[in-house]
Amino acid sequence: MEENDITTESTPLEMPAKLRVGITHGDINGISYELLLKTFDDPAIAQELFTPVIYGSTRIAAAYRKMLELPEFKWNKIADAEEADPSRVNIINVVAEDTPLATGTATPEAGQAAFAALERATADLKEGKIDVLVTCPINKNAIHSEEFSFPGHTEYLEDRLSDPENPSKAMMIMCGRGIRVALVTIHDPIARVAELITKESVADAIERFAATLVKDFGVHGPRIAVLGLNPHAGDAGVIGTEEQDIIIPAIEEANRRHLVAFGPYAADGFWASGAYTRFDGVLAIYHDQGLIPFKMIADTEGVNYTAGLPFIRTSPDHGTAFDIAGRGVADPRSLREAIYAAIDIYRARQREEECTRSPLRKQQPERRRKRQNEGGATENPEPTSAAATE
Amino acid sequence: MEENDITTESTPLEMPAKLRVGITHGDINGISYELLLKTFDDPAIAQELFTPVIYGSTRIAAAYRKMLELPEFKWNKIADAEEADPSRVNIINVVAEDTPLATGTATPEAGQAAFAALERATADLKEGKIDVLVTCPINKNAIHSEEFSFPGHTEYLEDRLSDPENPSKAMMIMCGRGIRVALVTIHDPIARVAELITKESVADAIERFAATLVKDFGVHGPRIAVLGLNPHAGDAGVIGTEEQDIIIPAIEEANRRHLVAFGPYAADGFWASGAYTRFDGVLAIYHDQGLIPFKMIADTEGVNYTAGLPFIRTSPDHGTAFDIAGRGVADPRSLREAIYAAIDIYRARQREEECTRSPLRKQQPERRRKRQNEGGATENPEPTSAAATE
Repeated sequence: MEENDITTESTPLEMPAKLRVGITHGDINGISYELLLKTFDDPAIAQELFTPVIYGSTRIAAAYRKMLELPEFKWNKIADAEEADPSRVNIINVVAEDTPLATGTATPEAGQAAFAALERATADLKEGKIDVLVTCPINKNAIHSEEFSFPGHTEYLEDRLSDPENPSKAMMIMCGRGIRVALVTIHDPIARVAELITKESVADAIERFAATLVKDFGVHGPRIAVLGLNPHAGDAGVIGTEEQDIIIPAIEEANRRHLVAFGPYAADGFWASGAYTRFDGVLAIYHDQGLIPFKMIADTEGVNYTAGLPFIRTSPDHGTAFDIAGRGVADPRSLREAIYAAIDIYRARQREEECTRSPLRKQQPERRRKRQNEGGATENPEPTSAAATE
Repeated sequence: MEENDITTESTPLEMPAKLRVGITHGDINGISYELLLKTFDDPAIAQELFTPVIYGSTRIAAAYRKMLELPEFKWNKIADAEEADPSRVNIINVVAEDTPLATGTATPEAGQAAFAALERATADLKEGKIDVLVTCPINKNAIHSEEFSFPGHTEYLEDRLSDPENPSKAMMIMCGRGIRVALVTIHDPIARVAELITKESVADAIERFAATLVKDFGVHGPRIAVLGLNPHAGDAGVIGTEEQDIIIPAIEEANRRHLVAFGPYAADGFWASGAYTRFDGVLAIYHDQGLIPFKMIADTEGVNYTAGLPFIRTSPDHGTAFDIAGRGVADPRSLREAIYAAIDIYRARQREEECTRSPLRKQQPERRRKRQNEGGATENPEPTSAAATE
């Protein structure tokens, strides 16, 4: 009975009819307000599909509306996400009235404004006031401070949203137009990539990628393609030995863990031949090997999803775009796709939880036993939603 | 007067109406005969555009014709390229009658057959019996021998076609659908790429790339984009310092040499945004950074051109494709484009030589003086066509 209680608590059966989508305004000097204004220009998007809650500033929104000569637009100003009107575009003012705009440049004030939105939205996400989080792009130099010393959103959210007792490791998944790409190394110099990968890190990346494909994308028994590191995937050891020494053993290890992984594939032919369409996910070894083709294929509809955390966060796959800020030429499709992706992933997780409720019940006692063995847990732990969605 | 004589000798005014295109059969167990049969299935291609001279085997061609159930086809068997009939598809038998076929596998006999075609065609190219050379793909393991110890066609041709007195350095240019991509490093392990590049090697690659764009593609004052090495082109030194230390100084050095080079660009955004369309050539730092997007863009029409040599050689941008050999599904477009590209480049070189004839006249005495200083030259040197096309 106790086990039943736990499951019921952690995965409530009644979900709100429409999800509350929290959206942070990101860097106010970039293109984010233009994207928001263009996205919500069509009132149907908010009325029919979800309830938007923007963490930003009505004053700055009005300034951009005038600057870009966009049509008059009625935001629903609210003080708390719980007050969100499901039929309107809700906005919570999170920045000081006198925050100066400096379109196209990085300023400390814009950094503070971006940080304020992120802190508030993250807190609301943890408290369940919003269901998913979509972040508009930030400028790393502007937001950098004593409080925000992370390389980017992903690391910040890993820190803030992870269950401290059982820290999660975030995994960046790029998705769009039916493809999903994950990376073994991300923001590392090319000179270090070869030394950074190990059999374990590649096998673990395959496993975490597979887990998110099951849980968040509803793909059962996902087929994962793993790319080689070197040109021609090393040409049987002629151009580098990492395929033989690291990547092939990692794929074999993943297969032993009952994961369906193939490769390593020579990256150029793999992408050019369309071979990627035959897999549920592609694991690239380094940044450009995954992101050059991903961005070419996803075009303006790419979404960055932070997998592996107890809460769902997506973002458009572009930056602040200071160079075109305030000019009215920004394309809102990636933001719109990020919103849809967050909703889709939320629903997929729900379905997955419903489908696997019985196995979860079986797993709970095991987990409890594990915690007891580790010494820190009580007889009757209250799982956070982190544990529930794992 | 003497100078005039030299110029006239080295760039004859009367060219044959149709070019003789030599085509080697490559690995006989791959898809090359299927490509040749499909390409010359349309008799107009040979009758109107150029005179094909295939270095191969009528017996093997007939075997593939039967295997693939392709229509009957009349080759014009000749003993020497000089006998080529401009209105027919000519073929020179270069292999032993009893050479065994083993479709889809690498055999030493196929390696010998590929080598024999290459040796004969290269000799004919140097003697002017053919105007340009198109090579079908070889298998590196099969062709490897005491006589052929090169990593591939490019290095072999660099060795065979270069003027020994003034050795040329070959540069692989991938071209197709209006884009041209060159590489600073090619078949090197990722772990070594960062240490292999220097300010000089990048600046020299820009200069050699610019030279071929002018001479072989008829682009004057070519605009070259240089990609960064690291993700986000290093993000101002945060993700690797090679952009600051090597690539930016190399671009500045190229600019001092009056070359129009820009960058370094973050590779993912550069390709995905279509920025490459604003340049005459793109210089990538390593293999996959250039070849993933190139092959995605050029699709089945990519051509590999070996620039920097006194003679013109192109090839399709695919391999022997043993996995689909003999199945009738191979796509001949890349071979066809390779033929057209070779012809286009030949004509562009001719035009460039005609346009720059006066400057060449000025340069000849300088060259002669240089040779005299080096001790080895006579008063009245006979420039090879290498010198003539430089």
